[in-house]
Amino acid sequence: MAVLGRNGRMGSEAVRAVEDAEDMALVAALGRGDDLQGIVDAGADVVVDLTVPSATRENVRFAVEHGIHAVVGTTGWDDAALAELETQLAAAPGTGVLIAPNFAVGAVLAMKFSELAAAFFDSVEIVELHHPRKLDAPSGTAARTAQLVAQARERAGLGGSPDATESDPQGARGADVDGVHVHSVRLQGLVAHQETLLGNPGEQLSIRHDSFDRVSFMTGVLLGVRSVASHPGLTRGLDGYMDLGL
Amino acid sequence: MAVLGRNGRMGSEAVRAVEDAEDMALVAALGRGDDLQGIVDAGADVVVDLTVPSATRENVRFAVEHGIHAVVGTTGWDDAALAELETQLAAAPGTGVLIAPNFAVGAVLAMKFSELAAAFFDSVEIVELHHPRKLDAPSGTAARTAQLVAQARERAGLGGSPDATESDPQGARGADVDGVHVHSVRLQGLVAHQETLLGNPGEQLSIRHDSFDRVSFMTGVLLGVRSVASHPGLTRGLDGYMDLGL
Amino acid sequence: MAVLGRNGRMGSEAVRAVEDAEDMALVAALGRGDDLQGIVDAGADVVVDLTVPSATRENVRFAVEHGIHAVVGTTGWDDAALAELETQLAAAPGTGVLIAPNFAVGAVLAMKFSELAAAFFDSVEIVELHHPRKLDAPSGTAARTAQLVAQARERAGLGGSPDATESDPQGARGADVDGVHVHSVRLQGLVAHQETLLGNPGEQLSIRHDSFDRVSFMTGVLLGVRSVASHPGLTRGLDGYMDLGL
Amino acid sequence: MAVLGRNGRMGSEAVRAVEDAEDMALVAALGRGDDLQGIVDAGADVVVDLTVPSATRENVRFAVEHGIHAVVGTTGWDDAALAELETQLAAAPGTGVLIAPNFAVGAVLAMKFSELAAAFFDSVEIVELHHPRKLDAPSGTAARTAQLVAQARERAGLGGSPDATESDPQGARGADVDGVHVHSVRLQGLVAHQETLLGNPGEQLSIRHDSFDRVSFMTGVLLGVRSVASHPGLTRGLDGYMDLGL
Repeated sequence: MAVLGRNGRMGSEAVRAVEDAEDMALVAALGRGDDLQGIVDAGADVVVDLTVPSATRENVRFAVEHGIHAVVGTTGWDDAALAELETQLAAAPGTGVLIAPNFAVGAVLAMKFSELAAAFFDSVEIVELHHPRKLDAPSGTAARTAQLVAQARERAGLGGSPDATESDPQGARGADVDGVHVHSVRLQGLVAHQETLLGNPGEQLSIRHDSFDRVSFMTGVLLGVRSVASHPGLTRGLDGYMDLGL
Repeated sequence: MAVLGRNGRMGSEAVRAVEDAEDMALVAALGRGDDLQGIVDAGADVVVDLTVPSATRENVRFAVEHGIHAVVGTTGWDDAALAELETQLAAAPGTGVLIAPNFAVGAVLAMKFSELAAAFFDSVEIVELHHPRKLDAPSGTAARTAQLVAQARERAGLGGSPDATESDPQGARGADVDGVHVHSVRLQGLVAHQETLLGNPGEQLSIRHDSFDRVSFMTGVLLGVRSVASHPGLTRGLDGYMDLGL
Repeated sequence: MAVLGRNGRMGSEAVRAVEDAEDMALVAALGRGDDLQGIVDAGADVVVDLTVPSATRENVRFAVEHGIHAVVGTTGWDDAALAELETQLAAAPGTGVLIAPNFAVGAVLAMKFSELAAAFFDSVEIVELHHPRKLDAPSGTAARTAQLVAQARERAGLGGSPDATESDPQGARGADVDGVHVHSVRLQGLVAHQETLLGNPGEQLSIRHDSFDRVSFMTGVLLGVRSVASHPGLTRGLDGYMDLGL
Repeated sequence: MAVLGRNGRMGSEAVRAVEDAEDMALVAALGRGDDLQGIVDAGADVVVDLTVPSATRENVRFAVEHGIHAVVGTTGWDDAALAELETQLAAAPGTGVLIAPNFAVGAVLAMKFSELAAAFFDSVEIVELHHPRKLDAPSGTAARTAQLVAQARERAGLGGSPDATESDPQGARGADVDGVHVHSVRLQGLVAHQETLLGNPGEQLSIRHDSFDRVSFMTGVLLGVRSVASHPGLTRGLDGYMDLGL
């Protein structure tokens, strides 16, 4: 297999992870400006794209054209780009592409479990905690989790979580994302953490994910590399490769 | 619907919960020594059995005989009793029985999510925390969770969690249940709490359930009452009624 | 000793707690309308006031007048009332009065530890979690903790916690109380919980208090009853009786 | 100031931390084999020793001999070595030495708060969680915390925590360190974490420290460097420099 974006933070971690994995052989690692033909010449069966939004679409197009499966962690895929890719894949029936916004399996499972549990609880709120250099609040993952939770509650016929708050002059109740309260903590020393709290009379279920280091993404990248060949066509989200019996 | 065991701790909570539920009508509530015929005379469609091991088998046999669905939270069902019940149910095709060891939906989901996640992590350990009047360690729920987690790891081809411990003279590493370490905390003020910790390089997933009050069981009892009629035959475990898409 | 407000929620708990304490004897328990002379006639040495704001001042005045120590959990003591009480106590040098807003020793310690730690960390935020019937956000205890933390940081010459947030359109960052972010979660099943999070590069210190039941206040009430005689004059806050070596 | 052990893991972090600190100037950084005279020639007022047990005693002796204050994070100081150092310091009245086993201020405070709180709770247990490459259980910090907690309980006249456990065939209750239960979790992805749980009827106080990265030690090293000149003589433990008003 081959890595694209070998000099980036994620790409260099991927090179190390693949080299450490006993069941994989790294045949090529390309950086900015390298000729993509290198992955073909090296005989790569799978390519991992951890490059930049301006490059990823051409990289994947090239890979599929040459029958090479692709595992993609780069952002920048809008609806038009995805539609174009699906058209290309329809004509390459044996080739698989995974495009995943998050490769930390714990984060993917935490989101999925939050969605599954949401139908069974009166209340749900989300707390996300990050390092203080983060520019936006709430985090994209927390906002996405809130949307999934809200949709699951709606499908189950649940209204909003009970809340008798009458006075909150300073906004302590946090953000309201589709009816789900989301709280953003920024704290020196932290990396990326998220907790979904679900409550019924007399009980609480908490689902928490802690990301301590970006190496956490590598478990999912390796899972993607191992699984992409057996999942032809386009798969969005790592959970598509995680057999939960769903 | 009717409640059996109305004077017990769980039974009296159930009476209250059913009375509070807008979509249910309590037509009978029986205590020790009351004639079971009362539930038939009252026209109950569903009976909730929260009695004692010595009574539950006859109660359920009677209910099924009269075409009344049963939701059972009483222990004492061994393999022979279950086989006999299944034989009876085979001859009563429209009648449903739910036998569940735990009606707290959060506890049921925590166990299920622990099992589902187990295949995707290098490490897993379980910490359960209870009030100091508990006689046994680890708790039955923690031991059962460890078994399910161990089986899921085995199915995924995973060995034991990594552990370099060489010196542990006082047993700080806790119990080893099928290869999964289980730790039991006993603390004044607590009720019943359990946490499954799962770890990969750079990340942790934690699934925690807190039971603060036995009223937590009522969410599951009501779910059972609402669902039993549409699940003919024997169902073991509340998760059989919780549609996770599994 | 004697209890005033024996029919209230707190008062009835106090009666039970005193009866259970082996080193105490309950000689009187008065409710609304009972003659205060009853505590003198019964020979009470200490009185616990768990009544209502409109009654507490007269109750305490009467107790001090008769040389009876008082432990007070009732609100309603403004600066004028406290000044008047101190004048009375100056003329009754052997008599002690404790007026405490919170008798849960864990809550008192959590607040004190948060204040002590605040000087040593770059970042601090507070998360409080309560049942969904609570009317105000943030909780009074959380707001008070934030103020104490802010003052401790100022004394240590620390500015605000680092925070690069540029975009927070929905207010996910919560309330800003004297420069300390406070987040309020409202969740079915919870009672009263609070966590102070403190962060430095590479580390986090978390101080959490969980109040599961109002019986938690009784530990502090008993501590007050046992200690008030040896603390003549007015003491505000249970921490005045908790010897931390401070 | 100067750093000894500049090539070690801790020493290289210290060099970086001092360079980043606006109020400090690094005048020398020595590695194995370098002549100690270098710190004198460079005019260092404080030296940080992060070397090895076989070198630290001679390094500190040399520093004190030349009137240079020392902040020492190296282990290897037995009673004899400490006695010898105190004798030397008695003859150098203006010079200060800090010898600390742990420079993470959060860890130091967590231990101190656990000790302070112990007298006020019925129950206390300790859970420590580390990466799975750790060789010993429980951790030294957890064992030390348990000892301090046990001593505080004894001073307060408290017996053991309540515990009705009758059956624990696999040792789920963990280690008993001076009557305090200690539990050791080993989990991939974790670094070094410890939680003290304290319980009374209806309430829990939890004091948790998370060490995510060894950079956490630098906050304490810098605190030591800034404070050592104003603390002549020998100080053991960073808490000696942390003014808690104790």
